[in-house]
Amino acid sequence: MSERTIRIGMLGCGTVGSAVVRMLAEHGDDIAVRTEVRLAVTRVAVRDVARERDVPLPRDAFTTDAASIVADPDVDLVLELLGGLDPAKDLILASFASGKPVVTANKEVLSIAGKELFDAADAVSRDIRFEAAVAGGIPLISPLKESLAGERVRRMLGIVNGTTNYVLTQMSEHGWTFEDALTEAQQLGFAEADPTADIDGFDAAAKCAILASIAFNTRVVASDVYREGIARITPQDIADAARLGYVVKLLAIAELEDGEVSARVHPAMIPDAHPLASVRDANNAVFIEGAKVGQLMFYGPGAGGDATATSVVGDLVHVARNLAFGGRAIGCTCVLDRPIRPMDATTGQYYLNLHVEDRPGVLAEIAEAFAHNGVSIERVWQEGFAEEATLVFITHRAQEGAFQKTVAELRDRSSVRAVASLLRVEGEE
Amino acid sequence: MSERTIRIGMLGCGTVGSAVVRMLAEHGDDIAVRTEVRLAVTRVAVRDVARERDVPLPRDAFTTDAASIVADPDVDLVLELLGGLDPAKDLILASFASGKPVVTANKEVLSIAGKELFDAADAVSRDIRFEAAVAGGIPLISPLKESLAGERVRRMLGIVNGTTNYVLTQMSEHGWTFEDALTEAQQLGFAEADPTADIDGFDAAAKCAILASIAFNTRVVASDVYREGIARITPQDIADAARLGYVVKLLAIAELEDGEVSARVHPAMIPDAHPLASVRDANNAVFIEGAKVGQLMFYGPGAGGDATATSVVGDLVHVARNLAFGGRAIGCTCVLDRPIRPMDATTGQYYLNLHVEDRPGVLAEIAEAFAHNGVSIERVWQEGFAEEATLVFITHRAQEGAFQKTVAELRDRSSVRAVASLLRVEGEE
Repeated sequence: MSERTIRIGMLGCGTVGSAVVRMLAEHGDDIAVRTEVRLAVTRVAVRDVARERDVPLPRDAFTTDAASIVADPDVDLVLELLGGLDPAKDLILASFASGKPVVTANKEVLSIAGKELFDAADAVSRDIRFEAAVAGGIPLISPLKESLAGERVRRMLGIVNGTTNYVLTQMSEHGWTFEDALTEAQQLGFAEADPTADIDGFDAAAKCAILASIAFNTRVVASDVYREGIARITPQDIADAARLGYVVKLLAIAELEDGEVSARVHPAMIPDAHPLASVRDANNAVFIEGAKVGQLMFYGPGAGGDATATSVVGDLVHVARNLAFGGRAIGCTCVLDRPIRPMDATTGQYYLNLHVEDRPGVLAEIAEAFAHNGVSIERVWQEGFAEEATLVFITHRAQEGAFQKTVAELRDRSSVRAVASLLRVEGEE
Repeated sequence: MSERTIRIGMLGCGTVGSAVVRMLAEHGDDIAVRTEVRLAVTRVAVRDVARERDVPLPRDAFTTDAASIVADPDVDLVLELLGGLDPAKDLILASFASGKPVVTANKEVLSIAGKELFDAADAVSRDIRFEAAVAGGIPLISPLKESLAGERVRRMLGIVNGTTNYVLTQMSEHGWTFEDALTEAQQLGFAEADPTADIDGFDAAAKCAILASIAFNTRVVASDVYREGIARITPQDIADAARLGYVVKLLAIAELEDGEVSARVHPAMIPDAHPLASVRDANNAVFIEGAKVGQLMFYGPGAGGDATATSVVGDLVHVARNLAFGGRAIGCTCVLDRPIRPMDATTGQYYLNLHVEDRPGVLAEIAEAFAHNGVSIERVWQEGFAEEATLVFITHRAQEGAFQKTVAELRDRSSVRAVASLLRVEGEE
């Protein structure tokens, strides 16, 4: 085969888009000789054409009219890097309508309107690929969808948000408060001025929906994902976890339980020896358990222009080769319709730290509250102070609803002065 | 598209082959609905047709005549699981000659005769895929070759042999000798009765050659790979490493230095905080540094029938889809002809433990030997005993040849009683 040139229309030219253009300029010859396709970004849609950009493209490659790029017969492939639902969704649909495959890094549109996009792609037999939408530079979607095409995934635990992992790492290593760690992350550019999407778990929930959809062959959307952020995590939580041999991480979790999908994002304690425990700073990692393969982990940078561009370019090569030489990527694999398990019905382990009155009978009273809700205790210990004691529990696997009911009952007891800390525990054998 | 059946002729039916057949029986419907191909193993070549096998195939699927499978017009795809150079190489070549693509898990044939195989595949435009040849169940070849198609890899550090990692883990965690740990590994089935291929690094060297070839786009064969095994590692080495914050691992290393490829397998000390340091027991992991993406790591089971079968089935799906719907996997990417850097010319850091006479002037004498060979010392400390002292050095990055010359000179000095330990140091920033 001889080299074929594929003309790319790029929508958006921010950090990732600029990095893609620079990478193609620097590595384009390498790519052509390895893969037999030459990737040429020929048109770029931006909001402001006049703005100076550090990209090796002529000024007349830029336009404010994204729709004209999607419709352009001289564009072979659309690269969507706008982010958000609108106008990205309509532009992707218009790309398929005009017969063009799409590469996107847009987790929002995929986690909200994924079905509509995949159906449209399938209807015209065109590829849609999105490696960069989850875990930035880490090859993850392609291994999951293709390399593991024959596997049955049981569970995924992911650190998929770099900002929160950076904040938790700083809290853990320096004993900082959440607020101080967040301020530092903002100063260093690891967190946005408005950090809500990261801190409250919205970003991770979108990625969790995408991963769960692929892992379990059923459509999971962002609003299906139970979500708790990290703003309530205290230095005391982290210190307590460390004392017990755990670290606190914000996890995106997707599990298959009795044919139902549990998808959730929340902070959790994981054992020091778990492969995810050593993922520091803004790095991401996704841990996968399969029926046959056992445990896999994929680790690397979750964000950054150059790293994310690497994933985008891998997708561009794949789609471009299919255009040039025939073939099609595996399409939508959401062929089943599995129920989403409500959070109350999921099972997990829990860590609970109670401040209680230090008098005879209190432990028995509290233990009875666990018992009549069917929550079994794995470990308990008491640390007495003057007049007040701290009781620490780690439960066996229990139903979330039963555990929350137990905690609600404990809060009402006069012997319980405070629920000092409550964290889920994940990643135990 | 509607489901297409692809008929697979399997050569060999050992642990991996049986696991593939069972996996297709169990997950075949899932695979068909996700990927639109049905994978049917229709013929199997074995040495002994009469032997009982735990595979759901009719007796008449088996034959001793591998060549007849390769030539069979009713076979669409050849799965080669024989291992070794002969007759695997000729059978793979015959498959291409009869127009059939090949999936193989055979690291030996790829690391010795890779060029011949890829040239033959390219000549007839047929796929050859080999995910299972390196790091068993870990998706690695496909991410490296496809997801990172646009990247420039600078360095790879891999734990790619489960047996040696198991032995080193046991030595490290229990203080055992190499011999005791190996015996236990043999009893538990983690090491062969003849463990030479693993212990002496031959297995890792074959995998290193394959990874280096893909990473640096140049053909590296097994005999290009410098190789040292783990038989000389002592409990003292491991204890010394631990005291300094390192663990000892057998690493497969592929580096690009000034356009030259260094490919080598040897034990090395890596820092506790390095992502590879926590890879325990028979697990594998490969750490990749790229120009744009930064640091990635892929972790999982390096062996085992079911885990390896997962990789094989991923390849089968890919090749079967190309047969069914058109398209071709990226072919041979060894488009350059880079020189192999001789081991003496590579650079690295070194740990050296010397027993020396405890008298004035010895340190100066020894330091002078480093100095006149151009080896710069990063850290040194002395521990005195009665009449004998231990001197421990960690060097800055230095040329291997210069360091070895230094050590040879030190051995000749009367003040040096023994070179107690010498280990390379990898994975420092």
